[in-house]
Amino acid sequence: MRVRKKPWAAKYIKDHSDLIVTDPESQLGHWQERFPSQQPIQVEIGIGKGQFIIEMARQNPGINFLGIEIQESVIATALRKLVASELPNVQLVETDGAFVDTLFAAGEIDKLYLNFSDPWPKTRHAKRRLTSPNFLVHYKKVLKKEGRIQFKTDNRGLFEYSLTSFNNFGLTFDEVWLDLHNSDGNEGNVQTEYEEKFSQKGPIYKLVAHF
Amino acid sequence: MRVRKKPWAAKYIKDHSDLIVTDPESQLGHWQERFPSQQPIQVEIGIGKGQFIIEMARQNPGINFLGIEIQESVIATALRKLVASELPNVQLVETDGAFVDTLFAAGEIDKLYLNFSDPWPKTRHAKRRLTSPNFLVHYKKVLKKEGRIQFKTDNRGLFEYSLTSFNNFGLTFDEVWLDLHNSDGNEGNVQTEYEEKFSQKGPIYKLVAHF
Repeated sequence: MRVRKKPWAAKYIKDHSDLIVTDPESQLGHWQERFPSQQPIQVEIGIGKGQFIIEMARQNPGINFLGIEIQESVIATALRKLVASELPNVQLVETDGAFVDTLFAAGEIDKLYLNFSDPWPKTRHAKRRLTSPNFLVHYKKVLKKEGRIQFKTDNRGLFEYSLTSFNNFGLTFDEVWLDLHNSDGNEGNVQTEYEEKFSQKGPIYKLVAHF
Repeated sequence: MRVRKKPWAAKYIKDHSDLIVTDPESQLGHWQERFPSQQPIQVEIGIGKGQFIIEMARQNPGINFLGIEIQESVIATALRKLVASELPNVQLVETDGAFVDTLFAAGEIDKLYLNFSDPWPKTRHAKRRLTSPNFLVHYKKVLKKEGRIQFKTDNRGLFEYSLTSFNNFGLTFDEVWLDLHNSDGNEGNVQTEYEEKFSQKGPIYKLVAHF
């Protein structure tokens, strides 16, 4: 998501350092200390404006959520929502989700969410897709045994690629949805802002899998 | 496919015993003897009226094709097309494709096609789906090492099930198409009669995988 620079973002983030981390490597292995309760940690890579992770946190008070987003102007908007929500179980992390292996200790994460990640449609950019083997190897390290990856996209090419990539890497599929919004599995589906907008234009694909 | 009984079918099949086998167990391990040339064998389970396998045989003279179909009235129509085609590299087999393991020796088959198989939509009938683990274990036995399964369907529920079933069984995906007829992968796609009719109504899904 490309967005205009928000002049207020940098100061707003600085003023809310209790809710957002900008030097995440310092937290490696100590993420629980950022939350009032020690609970399983679930991570969303690429939170956009934060609707998904904040609603998930509201519905699941027994889980600590970490939302990673690289773009300052985007995460600042999510941070505003988080401040307004007054939820204790969300922390935001301004960093590049590509380096998730440097942020977490082995097995520190319970579940990982990839929502509407950049499809990088050109074949020569396949390595940049967050579902490519380059990243799967990192997810495998930081997810606990039996930890799950949940992936949603509206991009057909990315989903075709990801089914093959996950399978070839040796992940075990729990369930696949090829038109989530017209499926039984849609009850309780928490939508991202993007998903609300684009689910009218074609199917939403979803995959849950584990290593 | 439910069809009306064709009164001419039984005699027509009997009169063309050079092109159709009705006692397939007798051929176990000896299928090559049914063809003029010893070539790799590819099998379609459930050929319907035979358009797919006959067109595949026309385009691939270096492959021997075996088409299995359980319904006499349906396979009789395919047989008529085969007689008219004068192709030397197709043999039909009137039998239940469910028992493919009793028809072929281990590693006798090069590639297996499942086209628009019965979706058996009720969960309690999942075991009857031709992509269920009950059948995959048979396919594994009769396919040679590196042999491929190619599966096409327009049924979303069956494809969701099959992706998970193939993955959980340990099959390796070669490629997945979630809307074949609107994909690059569609050049050279040989259609079944059913596919020609129903590809206008929604996406055709395709998976190629190997054990």
